[in-house]
Amino acid sequence: MADVLPMNNLAISDTVEQAEFSQRVLIRSILTRPDGGAGLAGKTLKVGGWVKKGREQGKGSFAFLELNDGSCPANLQLIIYSDVAPLSQFTPTGTCLHVEGVLQMPPEDKQGKQSIELKVSKVLDIGPADPGKYPLPKTRLTLEFLRDYVHLRPRTNTISAIARIRNALAYATHTFFQKHGFLYVHTPIITTSDCEGAGEMFQVTTLINEAEKNEKELLKNPPPSQEDVDLAKSLVKEKGEIVAKLKADKAGKPCITAAVVELTKAKESLAKVEERFNMKPGIPKKKDGKVDYSQDFFARQAFLTVSGQLQVESFACALSSVYTFGPTFRAENSHTSRHLAEFWMVEPEIAFADIEDDMKCAEAYVRFMCQWLLDNCYDDMEFMVEKFDKNAIKRLQMVASTNFVRLSYTEAVTILEEAVVKGHKFENKVEWGIDLASEHEKYLTEIKYESPVIVYNYPKGIKAFYMKLNPDKKTVAAMDVLVPKVGELIGGSQREENYEIIKERILEMGLPLEPYEWYLDLRRYGTVKHSGFGLGFERMILFATGIDNIRDVIPFPRFPGRADL
Amino acid sequence: MADVLPMNNLAISDTVEQAEFSQRVLIRSILTRPDGGAGLAGKTLKVGGWVKKGREQGKGSFAFLELNDGSCPANLQLIIYSDVAPLSQFTPTGTCLHVEGVLQMPPEDKQGKQSIELKVSKVLDIGPADPGKYPLPKTRLTLEFLRDYVHLRPRTNTISAIARIRNALAYATHTFFQKHGFLYVHTPIITTSDCEGAGEMFQVTTLINEAEKNEKELLKNPPPSQEDVDLAKSLVKEKGEIVAKLKADKAGKPCITAAVVELTKAKESLAKVEERFNMKPGIPKKKDGKVDYSQDFFARQAFLTVSGQLQVESFACALSSVYTFGPTFRAENSHTSRHLAEFWMVEPEIAFADIEDDMKCAEAYVRFMCQWLLDNCYDDMEFMVEKFDKNAIKRLQMVASTNFVRLSYTEAVTILEEAVVKGHKFENKVEWGIDLASEHEKYLTEIKYESPVIVYNYPKGIKAFYMKLNPDKKTVAAMDVLVPKVGELIGGSQREENYEIIKERILEMGLPLEPYEWYLDLRRYGTVKHSGFGLGFERMILFATGIDNIRDVIPFPRFPGRADL
Repeated sequence: MADVLPMNNLAISDTVEQAEFSQRVLIRSILTRPDGGAGLAGKTLKVGGWVKKGREQGKGSFAFLELNDGSCPANLQLIIYSDVAPLSQFTPTGTCLHVEGVLQMPPEDKQGKQSIELKVSKVLDIGPADPGKYPLPKTRLTLEFLRDYVHLRPRTNTISAIARIRNALAYATHTFFQKHGFLYVHTPIITTSDCEGAGEMFQVTTLINEAEKNEKELLKNPPPSQEDVDLAKSLVKEKGEIVAKLKADKAGKPCITAAVVELTKAKESLAKVEERFNMKPGIPKKKDGKVDYSQDFFARQAFLTVSGQLQVESFACALSSVYTFGPTFRAENSHTSRHLAEFWMVEPEIAFADIEDDMKCAEAYVRFMCQWLLDNCYDDMEFMVEKFDKNAIKRLQMVASTNFVRLSYTEAVTILEEAVVKGHKFENKVEWGIDLASEHEKYLTEIKYESPVIVYNYPKGIKAFYMKLNPDKKTVAAMDVLVPKVGELIGGSQREENYEIIKERILEMGLPLEPYEWYLDLRRYGTVKHSGFGLGFERMILFATGIDNIRDVIPFPRFPGRADL
Repeated sequence: MADVLPMNNLAISDTVEQAEFSQRVLIRSILTRPDGGAGLAGKTLKVGGWVKKGREQGKGSFAFLELNDGSCPANLQLIIYSDVAPLSQFTPTGTCLHVEGVLQMPPEDKQGKQSIELKVSKVLDIGPADPGKYPLPKTRLTLEFLRDYVHLRPRTNTISAIARIRNALAYATHTFFQKHGFLYVHTPIITTSDCEGAGEMFQVTTLINEAEKNEKELLKNPPPSQEDVDLAKSLVKEKGEIVAKLKADKAGKPCITAAVVELTKAKESLAKVEERFNMKPGIPKKKDGKVDYSQDFFARQAFLTVSGQLQVESFACALSSVYTFGPTFRAENSHTSRHLAEFWMVEPEIAFADIEDDMKCAEAYVRFMCQWLLDNCYDDMEFMVEKFDKNAIKRLQMVASTNFVRLSYTEAVTILEEAVVKGHKFENKVEWGIDLASEHEKYLTEIKYESPVIVYNYPKGIKAFYMKLNPDKKTVAAMDVLVPKVGELIGGSQREENYEIIKERILEMGLPLEPYEWYLDLRRYGTVKHSGFGLGFERMILFATGIDNIRDVIPFPRFPGRADL
C-alpha cells in the first residue's frame, strides 16, 4: 500500500522497520527502497521466508539462497557459510528459514543482479522440505497442475503475485467507496429471497443431516411396534380409569394426586412411544409429498445468495450511499474458464442518483483501481507482463487515463450491423432486442474503440424487472461496462422507484408478488430515485493480470465436482 | 472517515462539496463542520433524505422538517413555505425528499438548537409515506419490534447509527492490517473440510432440488414399464441379428453400415429407457443406504465454513502476514442474545510469530478500533451513550489507552479461587482443567482488573488440536482477550508447527487423519512458527455500542426459525 512504507526519494533512511507482530523485517522494506537496499549495508537484522532456489558454491564452503517472504515478488539473496551450519539442509526449494544476519553489498562483479545481500550469522529456525517429496519443485509448473495443490500453490511466484494484486484491489475498493462517503453493508449470505428464480441456487439445509441422525438412531434403537403403542395406550386408559374411580369414590386428595401423577407419566410415555413410532427415515415430507421445510433450520427453504443487490437497496433507501462486497454463489453446471460456483461481488447502491451518476461512479471506480495497481503493485504487474500478458500494464495505464466511451444499446447495434456489412463475421446474430454476445462486446471495446465502453438503455425484454423503465417504454436504464480482455466487467442500472410500474413489471415477468412485498415496501414508503451496479471481483483480477482462467485468481476455487479444503 | 472530509479548524472553508455520484450534498458535510454549518449561510444547494419529524406552523404558512440522509446522526432542519408546494405531503415521518434551497441562519431565538437551516426553494422529488400505513411511525419503537422490519429499520436512528459504527469498524480493520503489511485473503465459504466435527455445520447441496425436479418429471412423464424395457431389449436383439446375418451373408458395405446405424439407434434408445426405468424418487442413495454425494454439485458433501483459520494458514505459510474477514456459520439451535447462525469473523495469521506476538497484535488491533471510533464516529457514540449505554464512550477511551493485563490461565484460576474464598459466588465451578465460564471472564475483566485482560496458556484438554503444545506438555499456547461488557472478544493461539506433535494431537482427539493431510503438508514441507486469532465482529460491535442483542448489530440476522429476505 502506498502509505505502508513512506519513502522519500531524496533522503533515504538508513534504518529499516521491524515488523511489529513478527520477529523479522519484511523483505519488501529492504528491496523496494529506491536504492534496492544498498543504504542498509552493515545493518544486522532478522528475516524469514521460503527458499526459492539454493545452490552450494566454493566447493561447499558457502551457499546462496533466494529467500521470499511474500511481501513482494523479489527475493532477498542470503549467503551462508558452512561454519554457521551444514549447508545441504538449506538449499532445497520450499525450505523455510528464519535467520539473523548482516546486510552487505555483494562483490562488485555481482552487483548488477543484487544491490544487497544478507550474510547469515545465525539460523533461528528451519523448516526442511525434503526435495524427494516436496510436491512443488522449482521447475516451472502449469497453473492447471497447481490447482491440485491449493494449499501449497501460494508459495509459487504466480499465485503469490495474484494474491497481492487481489489484496490491493480489495483495499482499493474499500478506500474508493469510503472516500466517497459510502457505507459498507454486510448483506446476508443465507437468503430466503429467491430472486432470480431458483434452479441455479445452492440450498442451505440441516434436513439431510437430521435425517441421517434419525436413521442412525432408528437402526441403533429400533422403533416401537404397534403392540408397544397399544400397550402404552392401554396403560393410559387403565391409569385414567383409576383416577376416575378415585374421584367417583371421593378418595382423599393425596391419593387422587398420586394417581394423577401416574396418569401423567403414562401419557408422557405414550407420547414418546408414538413419536418414535411415527419416525420415518428420510427427509420429512408434508402430506402432499413435498419436503416439509417447516422442519428445516430456518423453518423455510434457504439458499446461498446470488447477489446482495436487493437487500442492500433497503440500506440505500435509508443511508443513501452504500456498498456491499462479499461472496455470491451460482449452482450452474458450468465448466468454463469464466465461471465459479463461489465468487466475490462489489455492489454499490446510491440514492438520489440516476443512470448518469451510476455510469460516472462505475467509471471512476474502475479507473481508481487501475491507478491503484500502478501505484502499489507495479512490481507484481511487471511479473505479470513478463510471464503472462505483455499488455497488462499498458491496459491499466490506458484505462486509468481514458474517458470511457458511452453508447446507447441502439447505437451499439447499429455499429455492429455496420461491421457485419463491412464483412466482420460474428457467430451470434446482431439484432435489436437480442442481448449482446461476448464477441460483440469484445468487438466494441477491443476493435472498434480500443477503450472501455459503457453501453446503456437496453431493451426491457432482456433485462431484470427492477431496472427503471425509460419514457420510451421499450428500454430500461441499464448499463454495462465493457473492457478489453474480459468484455463485460460491470452491470448496473437505475432502479425502478415507482411502485405501480415495478409491481406491473414483476407480474409481467411471471414472478409472484409475495416474496417481493418487502422490496415493494421500499417503493410504498418514502421511495427514492436510486441506482447501482455489480462488479465481478474475479473478472477485475483477470482484466488486471491477464490470467486466463478464473480458477487461478481466487484462493480456493469452487466449481462442479471440486471444492478442495 | 477521518480523511473523507478534511477539515481545518483554523480556517473553515465556505464551500461545500457536492457528492460526486449523487445529486446532493451530504448532510454530514454541512452539520459536522466545526461551526455546525453556519459558515455556509447563503449557499444554494441540493440535499436528499427522509423526514424524521415534520410540523406545520404559522397557521399552515410554513413547515419545519427534520431531514436525515444517513451520512450522520444529525438531521438538517428544512423550512418550506406553502407557496413552494402544499405542505401536508411533506410532514409525515418516512417521506423522502430531494430538494434545492438556500442555507440560512435560523432566527436568533432558535439558534441554540440549530446553527443552520435550509430554506427550500424547489422540490425536486418526493417519495410520500402515508402516515396511516407506514409501519415505522415516529413514536419510539423497540429493537425487538424492528426485527420484524429488517428492510425498513435502517431508517431508524438506532439501526443507522449501528450501521455507521459497523462500517467504521470494518474499514478500521482493513486499515489496521494493511498498515502492518498483512494481505487480505478470501477464504472459502463453501468448504469440504469439516474441521470441528460436523453436526453444527450447514450443508450446501443441490441434491434436494435435483430430487424434486426428478420427481416432478416422473409425475409429468411416468417412467417406462418393464414391458417397455423388454420391448427395447428385443429391438436391440433383432437389429443385432440383422447385422450378424448381413455380415455372414457378406452383404455390401453400405448395406451393413445402414444396419449398424439402426442397431446403434436401438441401443441408444434402450439406454434411455433403462435410465428412466431406474430413476427413483428422492435423494440418490448408495447401496449401503447412505446418501450418494458423488451426485451432489461438488461430488462430495459440502458445508458452510465455521472459520477460515485452517485455510488461511496455507497463505500464512507462504505470504507470512495475512488475514481473512468474512462470514462464518453455525447451525447451532441456540436462541440466545449472543448467537447468530451467520456472523462475521476477522482472522489474522502471522508467520515467524509466537504467542507473544499474537497477543501484541490482538491488543494493538482492539485498541486501534476503539481509537478509530472515537476519532470517526464520536457523534454516533454520543447517541449510543444517550440511548443505550452511558459507559460506551468511557469504555472505548479506557481500552484505547490501557495496556491489557496478562495472566496465565493458572494465575487466573488462582485469582478466581481466592475470590471464592473471599465469598464471591460463581454458578460454575472454578478448577484447574475446566474452561473459564463467562461469569469468570467477566469477573476478571469487570471486577478484578476493570481493564481488558489476556488469559494465556490454557490446559490442552479444553483447547483445539492445532494449538501449540507448551514444554510443560499440559498447556497449550492459547490466549483469550477478555473485555468488559462482552467477556471473550478474541480467541487465538500459536499453532503447532511440529509435524509429529500435531499428528499425534489429531489422533489423540479421536479425529481422522485423512481430511487433515493438506494441513499436515504445511508442517511436512517448510514448516514455520506461526500464530493467529479470531475476533467475532458482532461481539466487537456489542462491546462498542452497548447494544444487548446481537440480532440488532448485523444488518440481516439469521437464527433458528428466521432468515428474513
